[in-house]
Amino acid sequence: MKRHLISAADLTRDDAVLILDTAEELARLSDRPIKKLPTLRGRTVVTLFFEDSTRTRISFEAAAKRLSADVINFSAKGSSVSKGESLKDTAQTLEAMGADAVIIRHGASGAPYRLATSGWIDAAVINAGDGTHQHPTQALLDAFTVRRRLLGPDGGLGRDLSGRRITITGDILHSRVARSNVDLLSTLGAEVTLVGPPTLFPVGAEGWPCEISYDLDAVLPKSDAVMMLRVQRERMGGAFFPTEREYARRYGLDGARMARMPAHAVVMHPGPMNRGMEITAEVADSPRCTAVEQVTAGVSVRMAVLYLLLGGAQPPAGQTPAAEPRGARPRTEENH
Amino acid sequence: MKRHLISAADLTRDDAVLILDTAEELARLSDRPIKKLPTLRGRTVVTLFFEDSTRTRISFEAAAKRLSADVINFSAKGSSVSKGESLKDTAQTLEAMGADAVIIRHGASGAPYRLATSGWIDAAVINAGDGTHQHPTQALLDAFTVRRRLLGPDGGLGRDLSGRRITITGDILHSRVARSNVDLLSTLGAEVTLVGPPTLFPVGAEGWPCEISYDLDAVLPKSDAVMMLRVQRERMGGAFFPTEREYARRYGLDGARMARMPAHAVVMHPGPMNRGMEITAEVADSPRCTAVEQVTAGVSVRMAVLYLLLGGAQPPAGQTPAAEPRGARPRTEENH
Amino acid sequence: MKRHLISAADLTRDDAVLILDTAEELARLSDRPIKKLPTLRGRTVVTLFFEDSTRTRISFEAAAKRLSADVINFSAKGSSVSKGESLKDTAQTLEAMGADAVIIRHGASGAPYRLATSGWIDAAVINAGDGTHQHPTQALLDAFTVRRRLLGPDGGLGRDLSGRRITITGDILHSRVARSNVDLLSTLGAEVTLVGPPTLFPVGAEGWPCEISYDLDAVLPKSDAVMMLRVQRERMGGAFFPTEREYARRYGLDGARMARMPAHAVVMHPGPMNRGMEITAEVADSPRCTAVEQVTAGVSVRMAVLYLLLGGAQPPAGQTPAAEPRGARPRTEENH
Repeated sequence: MKRHLISAADLTRDDAVLILDTAEELARLSDRPIKKLPTLRGRTVVTLFFEDSTRTRISFEAAAKRLSADVINFSAKGSSVSKGESLKDTAQTLEAMGADAVIIRHGASGAPYRLATSGWIDAAVINAGDGTHQHPTQALLDAFTVRRRLLGPDGGLGRDLSGRRITITGDILHSRVARSNVDLLSTLGAEVTLVGPPTLFPVGAEGWPCEISYDLDAVLPKSDAVMMLRVQRERMGGAFFPTEREYARRYGLDGARMARMPAHAVVMHPGPMNRGMEITAEVADSPRCTAVEQVTAGVSVRMAVLYLLLGGAQPPAGQTPAAEPRGARPRTEENH
Repeated sequence: MKRHLISAADLTRDDAVLILDTAEELARLSDRPIKKLPTLRGRTVVTLFFEDSTRTRISFEAAAKRLSADVINFSAKGSSVSKGESLKDTAQTLEAMGADAVIIRHGASGAPYRLATSGWIDAAVINAGDGTHQHPTQALLDAFTVRRRLLGPDGGLGRDLSGRRITITGDILHSRVARSNVDLLSTLGAEVTLVGPPTLFPVGAEGWPCEISYDLDAVLPKSDAVMMLRVQRERMGGAFFPTEREYARRYGLDGARMARMPAHAVVMHPGPMNRGMEITAEVADSPRCTAVEQVTAGVSVRMAVLYLLLGGAQPPAGQTPAAEPRGARPRTEENH
Repeated sequence: MKRHLISAADLTRDDAVLILDTAEELARLSDRPIKKLPTLRGRTVVTLFFEDSTRTRISFEAAAKRLSADVINFSAKGSSVSKGESLKDTAQTLEAMGADAVIIRHGASGAPYRLATSGWIDAAVINAGDGTHQHPTQALLDAFTVRRRLLGPDGGLGRDLSGRRITITGDILHSRVARSNVDLLSTLGAEVTLVGPPTLFPVGAEGWPCEISYDLDAVLPKSDAVMMLRVQRERMGGAFFPTEREYARRYGLDGARMARMPAHAVVMHPGPMNRGMEITAEVADSPRCTAVEQVTAGVSVRMAVLYLLLGGAQPPAGQTPAAEPRGARPRTEENH
């Protein structure tokens, strides 16, 4: 595995399966009275957020703390570093302060890549969302969730998503979630179909490793999982799409549409859901909807990424390097 | 004791005495070089604040950290969750992230109750102030402080406030502090009198378990403790009360008025004080004023609440369940 | 050493050398896989910032966490305590909550002194910058950096800066960095020269323990270190100085000017740098520029200050008091 996590497209099939398997292990270890692991004790993890995203930040914060890392929250918004030109100074500052990992959220596509490849910084860089580009841990948590649901009670340990048919529906044009998922799910062997209004597809999407459709009803019966993207209401009613109501009618998931899906198929949503827009309350609250499991998966997957990026380099005494986490069984606080 | 702490009115006399006694014990254990207890190691406490209240937040944060919990601050103000309709999504997010306790502050009366009873969340919910409704840990810290002062050097362990006469003065109408205190102090056996201008009493206050008076001077000689509420200056000069000056003259506590109180009686204030308004500097800085002790009590009482709500369910090995904390003597770091 | 750190002028030569030596030791101890020391476990460090300064805050936060202290961030800006008159209430609140150290940043010169000497608080007070007055840990990190660079690979342990010639260039009038450095560097035996336009010197500077010059080129060949202050662009173009361009031409450091410095001499900058203004990119990125080392030094020096102010009073068992840190070798987590 590389030293950074910038894009879901950078992950090989084996990288991705290793992360998912590690997340499964960590999820099991955490499912105990004392949920904390000592793995990253003494390491400093910085969240460097140029955009607000409380959900993503606290998920990473919870993951890092559960591994006993120290977390420093650096909200760059409004501070002296909110201007792009000083990313270098900010990076050098964090490096000089001894950051072991920098989790970056930035409005500009490519900022995490620049941070990781500039030579400014030795810390591991984790992309927590950059512009319309990538959000790799979101794709990993989605893959984790769907693997658990579709491949049975052992979480599908060691396996990928070969042959599973996954549909992603909504505003593909502005969605880093869609793009990251297309990359990761196809790497994992899934057959991905994107569905949405033609105006909400980016130029070049026809070259992506997936199918494209404008007809949700036609795709549903052939889907093992359907991921509904969150609608940005401010994008409705203008050049992209006529009205919210029309959107919900054509691309929203309601009970009738859900009934067209195979019995085993699941409904996914990255949250927070617009009930009545892209998803009805009936579907959102049905046991087929995995939205809440996805949040839990987010902490497990982010623990796994931090563990693999940081734990492997300098293993605590008595602990097998993270590169072979399957045999390592990270110790809990209890036997520390 | 219940699984949540939503309202002072929910506490029985025995619940309240248990919390106060536990707070006394924790205060003593914390009064050492190493103030930290390992009780909640590995537990995650989230502060979910829809309104700013730095004092209350950092008091809870200090309490949780002194019990070795991990604290995640979630300032909902201005974030995507600041709208009421998504409280459910927020709750499910925190639950899915593994929060063991959620400390909620909300502008709407009833939000903590909704959070605790909705079934959205399994975590313990602690109300840190909701609208004009309740602020139960404020009432507990007030009760803790007055018990210590009135019942002697052992902190009144095991005892309630039977027969003590406590006066609360100020803007009763808008004060969740007053309301919470009436509930808790009366449960603890105290005789409570509310004093303020008639326009600053809520409809229905005559049905509360307390006396009502508009004449502070008449009540002072019969008070063992007088609690001065903070005046919200923006409420002066309108429908509620003519002028600040007139308010201070009739309902403010100055040295002359304090002299009318019994020699043993104390002056309380939840802070921050408006010196010259509801309290003069002379009174605020006198040894009879407990404002600073109340802040210290706040940390002890919040430690006790977290300990009882979280510690009891899954006791760390070698530690007696929190339900019997008197015999448990939570271990300090030193003998950990 | 005193109980607080308010001004660089309060430090004796021996105090300063002790802090620098302690910082060297801590820097070495931290330069390991597990960078955390248990020294301040159970202690509570509060950052009380009335002005935003993310860089300074996270440097202190990183320092405190690396010593295992609990950190509570109290951003006073915009909260109920943002008004000066309630500094007393805020102080008493933090004291009552059990703060062991309060790191204060305030727009008003003298606020940290008032906090430390008022009797409101028993915690150690550390000035993190007050108005145009002082920023003592900045001066300490600068001294640490220049001692390391000029006195060789052992960091100059035990030694001061006698006979070293240090030039500080820029807006002296508004710079607490300049003022703190003049105090500390002269205490350490250095010969300090201030350079800048006459309009950017404060009244009374001629009485400071340093030389004054308006001609950078004349001073450079006699400098062992040149510290470039950050230009506040909003001060340009008015009464203080004609234009940015003219400023850069006369007082900016470019490659040609750097070549006039002795071969061993270094360039310092407190960051963030205005490349093209007070320093060119060529100089900023040259190996003679210590800007990044200064950030690292900041964490070490702040660890040393916290260690000496807090560690000495109540030494953890088995640890020699901080007053003799040279023999104490604070234990790492590993042998804890």
